Amino acid sequence: MDLYDAMSTLRAVRRLRPDPIPEDVLERVFTAATWAPTGGNLQPWRIIAVRAPDTKQSLEDLYRPHWNTYVPRYHDKMANMAPAQKASSQRALDAGDYLATHMHEAPVIAVFCFNPDLMTITDQALPRPSVVGGGSVYPAVQNLLLACRNEGLGCVLTTLLCIEEAQLRPLLGLPEGWYTCAFVPIGYPVGGGHGPIRRRPVSSMVFTDRFGAT
Amino acid sequence: MDLYDAMSTLRAVRRLRPDPIPEDVLERVFTAATWAPTGGNLQPWRIIAVRAPDTKQSLEDLYRPHWNTYVPRYHDKMANMAPAQKASSQRALDAGDYLATHMHEAPVIAVFCFNPDLMTITDQALPRPSVVGGGSVYPAVQNLLLACRNEGLGCVLTTLLCIEEAQLRPLLGLPEGWYTCAFVPIGYPVGGGHGPIRRRPVSSMVFTDRFGAT
Repeated sequence: MDLYDAMSTLRAVRRLRPDPIPEDVLERVFTAATWAPTGGNLQPWRIIAVRAPDTKQSLEDLYRPHWNTYVPRYHDKMANMAPAQKASSQRALDAGDYLATHMHEAPVIAVFCFNPDLMTITDQALPRPSVVGGGSVYPAVQNLLLACRNEGLGCVLTTLLCIEEAQLRPLLGLPEGWYTCAFVPIGYPVGGGHGPIRRRPVSSMVFTDRFGAT
Repeated sequence: MDLYDAMSTLRAVRRLRPDPIPEDVLERVFTAATWAPTGGNLQPWRIIAVRAPDTKQSLEDLYRPHWNTYVPRYHDKMANMAPAQKASSQRALDAGDYLATHMHEAPVIAVFCFNPDLMTITDQALPRPSVVGGGSVYPAVQNLLLACRNEGLGCVLTTLLCIEEAQLRPLLGLPEGWYTCAFVPIGYPVGGGHGPIRRRPVSSMVFTDRFGAT
């Protein structure tokens, strides 16, 4: 696919079919992730491609209660939304409910892990939430999502399972020093899958020289 | 460009020409950033496109001492590298030295800001470095980098300037609650620009069901 066509139609697809994904397709998706830039080219991330039915079911069972906790908090955020945005968010929540009870059906759940010892986290000492470690992981996640789009695979970036990292450690054999940061169920879409997306106009996202100035 | 061609040839390009970038090209690059997914589609990031010569010079002056501090620490990491990797890292350091004294020449420095109040940072309470906030920013950064590649523009993701956030706040007019997380100098390459990249093989980056298992 053309780069801009892939980016501009990459949706969060939460309804996935259990049909298997050919190995060569998966290999291309994972290879695309490895192409992403990382600080010092140290590639401080790994993917655990979860395919075992029991493990996928365990991930879903750990995920569901956190999803059910998240929904009412997101409803509060929706109170201030314009009607079109609110309707779109409600559709996303409905699809999220589906994912929370069908995640185990996805043929693969890509669990991204990272090792902070291989990162230079420049905002770690600042008096606000640190995000810079993510700069050496989420570009790879985005490459993987775009590659799924390219291959006709549905996918969605989720992070709620991080909360259960202590339970995930024995389940996934996570060694000391490695932690989780993204969980991407992958499969062919139940419905239309990817398509047009709704985003704020670029004029409200990009300023010139000073914050707020256009 | 084809998606995989763009991804597999996206290099960190640190030698940039001062030539101006046409407005329609920049508009496409920034629009690509807005297409990225974010948690709850809340798009908790903004770009400040720094073009004013004085501001670009100030960014370079704040950057240079941190680069000079970073280099010897990275030399320590290089001690354990294979010869080919070490040579490649040395070339990157040389280009980094160039950037540290020529950053002001880039026609645009894209400064990414984020607002953690618009994020659900699921790993914030865990006893290890938090990265999940980056999941709603760095996919947009990666889209921007890939769009630069598509447009023939050099670019490189840097994060060292976060350390100087207190100085950046008045310089960039950052409002309370907004913080910096990525600084991307953008311009046409001095030399060959993008091209083949060096990465670990996918077999050493992707496991099946458990960490380390293939």
